[in-house]
Amino acid sequence: MNIAIDAMGGDFAPDAVVEGAILAYQELPPNSSLLLIGKPEVIQPLLDKHQFNGGNFQIIPASEVIEMGEHPTKALAQKPNSSIAIGFSLLQTKRADAFCSAGNTGAMTVGAMFSIKAIEQILRPAICSLVPTVDGHYGIILDVGANADCKPELLDQFAEIGSVFAENLLNIDKPKVGLINLGEEEQKGTLVVQAAHQLLKQNKKINFIGNIEGRDIFTGKADVLVCDGFTGNVILKMAESIYDILKNKNIHDSFFDKMNYEAIGGSPILGVNGNVVIGHGVSSPLAIKNMIMLAIKMAQSNIHLKIKEALNEKFSA
Amino acid sequence: MNIAIDAMGGDFAPDAVVEGAILAYQELPPNSSLLLIGKPEVIQPLLDKHQFNGGNFQIIPASEVIEMGEHPTKALAQKPNSSIAIGFSLLQTKRADAFCSAGNTGAMTVGAMFSIKAIEQILRPAICSLVPTVDGHYGIILDVGANADCKPELLDQFAEIGSVFAENLLNIDKPKVGLINLGEEEQKGTLVVQAAHQLLKQNKKINFIGNIEGRDIFTGKADVLVCDGFTGNVILKMAESIYDILKNKNIHDSFFDKMNYEAIGGSPILGVNGNVVIGHGVSSPLAIKNMIMLAIKMAQSNIHLKIKEALNEKFSA
Repeated sequence: MNIAIDAMGGDFAPDAVVEGAILAYQELPPNSSLLLIGKPEVIQPLLDKHQFNGGNFQIIPASEVIEMGEHPTKALAQKPNSSIAIGFSLLQTKRADAFCSAGNTGAMTVGAMFSIKAIEQILRPAICSLVPTVDGHYGIILDVGANADCKPELLDQFAEIGSVFAENLLNIDKPKVGLINLGEEEQKGTLVVQAAHQLLKQNKKINFIGNIEGRDIFTGKADVLVCDGFTGNVILKMAESIYDILKNKNIHDSFFDKMNYEAIGGSPILGVNGNVVIGHGVSSPLAIKNMIMLAIKMAQSNIHLKIKEALNEKFSA
Repeated sequence: MNIAIDAMGGDFAPDAVVEGAILAYQELPPNSSLLLIGKPEVIQPLLDKHQFNGGNFQIIPASEVIEMGEHPTKALAQKPNSSIAIGFSLLQTKRADAFCSAGNTGAMTVGAMFSIKAIEQILRPAICSLVPTVDGHYGIILDVGANADCKPELLDQFAEIGSVFAENLLNIDKPKVGLINLGEEEQKGTLVVQAAHQLLKQNKKINFIGNIEGRDIFTGKADVLVCDGFTGNVILKMAESIYDILKNKNIHDSFFDKMNYEAIGGSPILGVNGNVVIGHGVSSPLAIKNMIMLAIKMAQSNIHLKIKEALNEKFSA
């Protein structure tokens, strides 16, 4: 199994990425390799600095870098030799089983759409994030930013692909799907959410438990938390800020520590023909390591194929 | 000054309300009275039980009660002698300067619209909530639930009325207005939020600082946090749940303790011709006391008249 990682992506790249990759080294499954994409002349000295010469590391040269502020579509067109473009090319040609980057989020999303592309029945791919629960488990929330405006049908599809993720990566049998809303009653919420509620209720492929409120996010009431990318993004960043505030106050707790982006590592893009994880721009070595471990789990479970199968079942049912 | 309070409203009414009113007693400003609305035969024994005979309490008889689960409009029509209906009647006839209740939220909102009514230029009233900041101050967020779907013009108006509240009740000069969004750039977000951004940018009556993200909610980056009632409700309930989780873990901190609904007491309805505060259904005596104190502050500053003046300025400018 080959996991490609953008060595040039993130505010603290390439140092933090190389260091994170070395951290991941100890936990790599047998017969797997890390493909570090970037400028060999900066990556090799960093590996040397850490006196690292693990045999399952490979440097894939990429002479260009897409910077954080660049326009995604333009940058991808103008920089075919960028680490992000080359990462997707590795994924497309099956030389990599997963690709992850803490670089330009927009370029990662657009790159996925242009290279490996969305799965045929997918209306729009979603970015998801793990959500810790107070009882020590994880749920999944989607979308957290790819789609600000969502139609009811899209929210319904998020429920399906989120359920496939929860079953396969979180090992949850018949994951409970909750629709994030301002009240429990089905007539509550925006017109879109009210319509989505009806679709979810009729969707036999999922285990819909109804609306969940802001107070239910961390309780494990639902395993798959469905919302538009606007709401999900606000929730995700608010949770991250809660962790930051607690950390600044020197308050540590096993549950709240999981709200730290470093612990989760990255946000998978679901609904594309490959395994892609986007990391936080400020990723530390620990965050990079956990992003790589998440990418490995996705590759091991072939989550993109499971999602494809699940969607096909719908049409053949 | 007369503050009317629904003695029958809330999951723990009338006990918790009467007890909360007694707690507020010590802090009442001179020449002010509390009007306890409800069934005298249950209120008086509770006052007696607490051996309370303060002269500035008055029981206003109301023979009916609107229960938490009742349909707001129907209940108000069918129960003209309910404590909520009578509370609004006191407000409308100026026998009360403010009215607060921890009862049926929908009935409180509908009751306000049918009795004292929305201020002429108001598109739709908003429910707001105080938001603690890490530096020890408070901001205000609106809407937190009255309007799930909001047009750009409505978000623009929330910014205006929220600014009036922040100036007069939080004593903030030129309060900074932030539009809650998934990114800082003005082209980010839903179509509605993008359009609202443009209106806010051009609005000379407010101090617009741009988009703010989920991570900025508690930093004090903005004093007035503008969002639709769907997003605001999720944020508010998520913040409350963070407090609950910390409390269950026996973690106490002056900042997070302010996320406790009890500390804030209630959510004002802004944009109606009177001072109305809605309390949490599960209000404890402490929450009731703080709801009363908030209602007093609103009545003292005549916030509803200030909002009316501010909106008129727009049309005469």
